[in-house]
Amino acid sequence: MESDPGFLVAVEEAKAGFEEGGVPIGGCLVSKDGKILGRGRNLRVQRGSATLHGEISTLENTGRLPASAYKGATMYTTLSPCDMCTGACIMYKIARVVIGENKTFIGGEEYLKQRGIEVVVLENEECQGLMKKFIEQKPEVW
Amino acid sequence: MESDPGFLVAVEEAKAGFEEGGVPIGGCLVSKDGKILGRGRNLRVQRGSATLHGEISTLENTGRLPASAYKGATMYTTLSPCDMCTGACIMYKIARVVIGENKTFIGGEEYLKQRGIEVVVLENEECQGLMKKFIEQKPEVW
Repeated sequence: MESDPGFLVAVEEAKAGFEEGGVPIGGCLVSKDGKILGRGRNLRVQRGSATLHGEISTLENTGRLPASAYKGATMYTTLSPCDMCTGACIMYKIARVVIGENKTFIGGEEYLKQRGIEVVVLENEECQGLMKKFIEQKPEVW
Repeated sequence: MESDPGFLVAVEEAKAGFEEGGVPIGGCLVSKDGKILGRGRNLRVQRGSATLHGEISTLENTGRLPASAYKGATMYTTLSPCDMCTGACIMYKIARVVIGENKTFIGGEEYLKQRGIEVVVLENEECQGLMKKFIEQKPEVW
């Protein structure tokens, strides 16, 4: 699953965020049949945004789709989703959330499962490494 | 509580949204000591946004504040919050959510309570009326 195109895109987004001096968290939304619907990254630093986390940014960039488009979809995210992003995945009835890592932070994984969403945690070293480097460099931002 | 400045602002935002042809849901964030921190409205129609609901829009317009600013804060919203907006209130550790009405839609009220947030429902007729008029005029959008 670490070689899924959606996951690779999410990691690319996280790296781009890191290069911009931002919180290195990326996302990618993939339809049931494997089409990339949208991608995004955390823009807290870049835009001073209070809500554009990786997943919210991904959903916003994806744009408004009919409810059927989210059916069976997977949200790839490089870090365990916070309560807001957890709620966004539930609201859009996303089927599966694939998480790069949850060592840096554990969000709403249990609540996602309670609400019938499949959760997969990859414990990916690249995602962990990006967050580690970011927190070392900018502890005050994280 | 229907005469709280924060609630009046949320209703103003909902009305402005209605005038723009948008989903008439407004929000307003008020600090513990009664200061209006931010306001916003649903921009699904106006901006084709998938994430700028009333509360998300309010938090985004409020901008990034230190965690202490949200302590004891109240989110006023004209309609019961969806799962995403519920999660956003939890993420920001907002103390109280005051809801204009929940007859048109009931969102994450129980989960807010479970997570220690006070929930007040006003069953305000003006909020209900705005949603009713909107749904009658644009059933396909709602």
